[in-house]
Amino acid sequence: MTTPLSPTPRTTVTRSRHRAVSERAELHALLEDALVAHVGVIVGDHPVVVPVAFAVDTEGPDAEGTLYIHGSVAAGWLTRAAGATVCVTVTEIDGLVLARSAFHHSVNYRSAVVIGEARAVTDPVERAHALALTVDHLVPGRTATLRPTTRKEDAATALLAVPLREASLKRRAGDPVDDEEDVAAGAWAGVLPLARAAGPVVTAADAAGVPVPDDVVARVRAWRGSH
Amino acid sequence: MTTPLSPTPRTTVTRSRHRAVSERAELHALLEDALVAHVGVIVGDHPVVVPVAFAVDTEGPDAEGTLYIHGSVAAGWLTRAAGATVCVTVTEIDGLVLARSAFHHSVNYRSAVVIGEARAVTDPVERAHALALTVDHLVPGRTATLRPTTRKEDAATALLAVPLREASLKRRAGDPVDDEEDVAAGAWAGVLPLARAAGPVVTAADAAGVPVPDDVVARVRAWRGSH
Repeated sequence: MTTPLSPTPRTTVTRSRHRAVSERAELHALLEDALVAHVGVIVGDHPVVVPVAFAVDTEGPDAEGTLYIHGSVAAGWLTRAAGATVCVTVTEIDGLVLARSAFHHSVNYRSAVVIGEARAVTDPVERAHALALTVDHLVPGRTATLRPTTRKEDAATALLAVPLREASLKRRAGDPVDDEEDVAAGAWAGVLPLARAAGPVVTAADAAGVPVPDDVVARVRAWRGSH
Repeated sequence: MTTPLSPTPRTTVTRSRHRAVSERAELHALLEDALVAHVGVIVGDHPVVVPVAFAVDTEGPDAEGTLYIHGSVAAGWLTRAAGATVCVTVTEIDGLVLARSAFHHSVNYRSAVVIGEARAVTDPVERAHALALTVDHLVPGRTATLRPTTRKEDAATALLAVPLREASLKRRAGDPVDDEEDVAAGAWAGVLPLARAAGPVVTAADAAGVPVPDDVVARVRAWRGSH
């Protein structure tokens, strides 16, 4: 899927337009890399922002892709969000931009902002698929190694779907952009790259001696290979 | 500062109470570790969540500490947030919790949720101090190595202060918590620790040959030493 993003006024990037990336493929790549999303909901008269695990289905019910977030049915904000407009923001920090002036200090990052109506997912097939995607988002292939979810576990899980239709993507990459006079003055400037470091795996105390499964080993290797 | 957090109903953790950490010192430690905050504001009839750099002043105007966020005066959401109730959420992911069932999969994390009225910072002394803290939050000691901010740069910067009065902290750490039957069945479970990897430093193309300054070298070393 490489259809361009189709932003409405509320997801059109009004500042730093050169940082808006209108390629849906890059949005999906960011959502693949990130492990946590920050979901904004209105509770009473103020916003609340909650970190959540998530998954994306590019073959899901929405043509542009579907973002799934889940949590306990006991989480008030999650049940309250069903039917409401939510904002889901996903950010990855790629480095510190250390300029010659405080003003030009910045951060290299990729960030997606998705605004949409959250739909409570009730269809059993869609629910099972979305929850499998959420586990496989943490460790690809892991769902296939686990026992099935029980009816009681499923009943305890609230699941919301947000269409990826209204989405915007921003990013900054590369060197600091300093004022000419500051460059001429000869001070240092540069980027301190940041990435995710994974491992070593810690086997649970109640699994001592059981070998680490292949899916987990592959996940650690993939992250180590990426930086 | 180790005063306990003083949550109101809207920042009282209603779920997973055992994950609420009522020590202000831990809140400050998390805010020290994290590089990005997600700020929620209400824009029209829906929430918007924006990633921002930030800084904390534990000696600031608010007894419990002051959180500063800044951005361009051209950023509509930022000027709109002045005087409004905002939610600032800061999350660090410490590991993937890989259980024996999909249901017990989780993430080890620390997360702070701060709700408060955002105050536009206009006092020149407070502004300069807050912007210095923001740069030093990226690289401790860096402000002292930079030229002063110009009046024009200052005028282009919007700065908001949020008191750390209404704050809640949640965290998860340690092994998966699996059902007894699943443990007895003998499958593997464990944690995949995640941390921040920093460096190597990339000197800007227009600073070739200039040695990397001590503050930046120390920052990389501190991160490498922490994991």
